[in-house]
Amino acid sequence: MDCQKALLEAEGDTEKALQILKQQGLLRAKKKADRSTTQGIIETYIHAGGRIGTMVEVNCETDFVARTDEFKELAHHLAMQIAALSPKFISETEVPEGDDIDPQVACLLLQPDIRDPGRTIQDTINETIAKVGENIKVGRFARFELGSQKA
Amino acid sequence: MDCQKALLEAEGDTEKALQILKQQGLLRAKKKADRSTTQGIIETYIHAGGRIGTMVEVNCETDFVARTDEFKELAHHLAMQIAALSPKFISETEVPEGDDIDPQVACLLLQPDIRDPGRTIQDTINETIAKVGENIKVGRFARFELGSQKA
Repeated sequence: MDCQKALLEAEGDTEKALQILKQQGLLRAKKKADRSTTQGIIETYIHAGGRIGTMVEVNCETDFVARTDEFKELAHHLAMQIAALSPKFISETEVPEGDDIDPQVACLLLQPDIRDPGRTIQDTINETIAKVGENIKVGRFARFELGSQKA
Repeated sequence: MDCQKALLEAEGDTEKALQILKQQGLLRAKKKADRSTTQGIIETYIHAGGRIGTMVEVNCETDFVARTDEFKELAHHLAMQIAALSPKFISETEVPEGDDIDPQVACLLLQPDIRDPGRTIQDTINETIAKVGENIKVGRFARFELGSQKA
């Protein structure tokens, strides 16, 4: 339904229609951004035979959504993303002032999605928000790499 | 072999013999305590359908030992222990001075082993040290419980 409308609005231009759909998703996600997220799941991922491990808390509004495949799949994907691109922060608001870093490298939500580098992790999360109809937030994450710890 | 000697030394008293064996293990572990541990694995554990997650880095001396079942089993057991008894620190040396806490509650190595509350986690680690013949250390750990985060 959304697709049809978007195609009509874009006068048959699929590229433009995709842009419209993305913006609609973003708008929907923004509308939900203030809703409190107290439910969710903790997901972990082990890479390279135990040399890298990640853990992420992903929050949503209800336990019902937390149990859906879409939500679990998102949590798993985020755990893999953190293993692959080792972000330091969740979002730009966490970056200490004066810190000379590239937010698109250091912030999970601004990183290119490893499965689809044309979009950001926030885009991917927005897509799941649109699917499940609840606000979703990354609560926290940790990434351990063997021997990478300061002694 | 060790058992026979210990029983002889304890003049057949099994309780005393166990004590002797435990001390021998401790001595052996202490001898290895200064050896550097740069290898190991990251292990994770998810509890209660994703409501609690733990991640632990356990270090040993060689990749060979890191791949043994004994070592992997220890790492898994530590991840479960952290989920069950939520320690705040690894050892007593990490506790900030003046902090009014019970080290046997807050420090992983001093906690009673959930599988065998008569001994501490350090005892359990010492046992694995004796088995694999390498120094073993807990590098770091993290424990996420759904919604327990300070906002």
